Amino acid sequence: MQTVRTIEEVRSIVRSARLDGKGIGFVPTMGYLHRGHTSLVEHSKKLSGFQVMSIFVNRIQFNDAGDFSRYPRDLERDLAVARDCGVDLVFAPGDDEMYRDRRTFVDMELLTDHLCGAHRPGHFRGVFTVVSKLFNIVLPDVAVFGQKDIQQAVSLEKMVMDLDFPLKIVIAPTVREEDGLAMSSRNKHLDPDERRRSLCIIRSLRMAEGMIASGERSARKILSEVKKELSTGRPDKIDYASLVRYSDLQPADEISERSVLAVAAFFGPTRLIDNMIVEEREGKFSCVY
Amino acid sequence: MQTVRTIEEVRSIVRSARLDGKGIGFVPTMGYLHRGHTSLVEHSKKLSGFQVMSIFVNRIQFNDAGDFSRYPRDLERDLAVARDCGVDLVFAPGDDEMYRDRRTFVDMELLTDHLCGAHRPGHFRGVFTVVSKLFNIVLPDVAVFGQKDIQQAVSLEKMVMDLDFPLKIVIAPTVREEDGLAMSSRNKHLDPDERRRSLCIIRSLRMAEGMIASGERSARKILSEVKKELSTGRPDKIDYASLVRYSDLQPADEISERSVLAVAAFFGPTRLIDNMIVEEREGKFSCVY
Repeated sequence: MQTVRTIEEVRSIVRSARLDGKGIGFVPTMGYLHRGHTSLVEHSKKLSGFQVMSIFVNRIQFNDAGDFSRYPRDLERDLAVARDCGVDLVFAPGDDEMYRDRRTFVDMELLTDHLCGAHRPGHFRGVFTVVSKLFNIVLPDVAVFGQKDIQQAVSLEKMVMDLDFPLKIVIAPTVREEDGLAMSSRNKHLDPDERRRSLCIIRSLRMAEGMIASGERSARKILSEVKKELSTGRPDKIDYASLVRYSDLQPADEISERSVLAVAAFFGPTRLIDNMIVEEREGKFSCVY
Repeated sequence: MQTVRTIEEVRSIVRSARLDGKGIGFVPTMGYLHRGHTSLVEHSKKLSGFQVMSIFVNRIQFNDAGDFSRYPRDLERDLAVARDCGVDLVFAPGDDEMYRDRRTFVDMELLTDHLCGAHRPGHFRGVFTVVSKLFNIVLPDVAVFGQKDIQQAVSLEKMVMDLDFPLKIVIAPTVREEDGLAMSSRNKHLDPDERRRSLCIIRSLRMAEGMIASGERSARKILSEVKKELSTGRPDKIDYASLVRYSDLQPADEISERSVLAVAAFFGPTRLIDNMIVEEREGKFSCVY
């Protein structure tokens, strides 16, 4: 595995891999790798012969400077994890390599109005901008994102379509702890009590799955029960519990062909998110979370 | 020369050219080609082996629907001109191929605040968005833009740097009619009287060049004389006559290392622009226009 700090080195190494006839897979991360990230690399390996991972805590997507400085970092450990799961090239740039006198940004209407977009002003602009840069640097054939950050994944699919990036976005299912908590670098901030209480999130998704299996389609009814279940974990704040269409992430009154049920809640100062994709196939609804 | 309508065809033809070992040159246009455009292709041919030209009147960069519908179009003649100057591939998409349910946009702070950016709200966002799409579709090694649209050219250089597009922007000098009027598709709208009066623009640039050669450095003094000279042509409106730094297109009090003197004025309903790049080399100032 090679580890580089500069854009120029990435370009030269990726060019060689391409000349060797290899397809390029790409997993962008902010580091502090866990099994969620390594599962993205596993997905990417099925689709391409050369694995690139970026590790970069992207300052411009944090709307809260405290959240940025608190974001956990451990590059040495990350490099060992990346090597173990078969990454070929890690790009770990410094702030200066990525942002000098930056004036250009990429942004999106509609898809970022609700869910996390409504609660983290500027967050998605920062994500779209850095991911556009990374796509132009790595020029991958496939880029893999996790379902856990569903608004990010769906809106990046839209960005790739709208701006004609020559690559395919793949969304890989959420990886969970044994008790159901979605893997996240932020989980380490939870104290034992918060960690226990946070399980109300997975309980609320399972409960919604049950209601849908029993034929319930009304967003109002499902969300009312989801919020009830969430409150059993006494979250410090529920940012949202929403049902939206997958296509444009706008609120829906009913479960439709393809919907997303998404929740965000604070446990102490730590904000956790999770979601479930509900899809209709031949009249049957399946839930992926 | 091949002419195609779809993104998929462009990708496949460019891929073949690349496999033949050719570098890709790109000249994006809105058609109604004149010698200004063919000169861009000539520049591109010096730098690359395969010439792509796009012809697309980009609705989203017009802040005025009338201006969009009035914009001259003649695809058949354009294709003959493109063939004659050695273009290998013309991409002439319809609106539907470029814009379906578009939500993503590319925009920039600072560089678009003044000059045309101040007078055409949304214009540059439309330019950055379509050019990003075209870059992702064509994947050129070099893209050539005309100096006449200086704010566009300089801010696209900035966009390429900020978003790490893997290509080089080249700015080619303005091509002029024999009497000095900058070539533009809009010139055809000028009636004989407006055409005659429009020559005050080139006179004003030449006068500024003379002042700078005589040692004048003050923006205030130079612009005051430029406006006087412009008014001898009785323009229907002067949008601006400005001196800005090349680096960030912000107003400057004095001629510095690299400055731009830019003017925009209406003759009848037709808005004309022109400019001059002033550069210091070894203590001497040279003017390119």
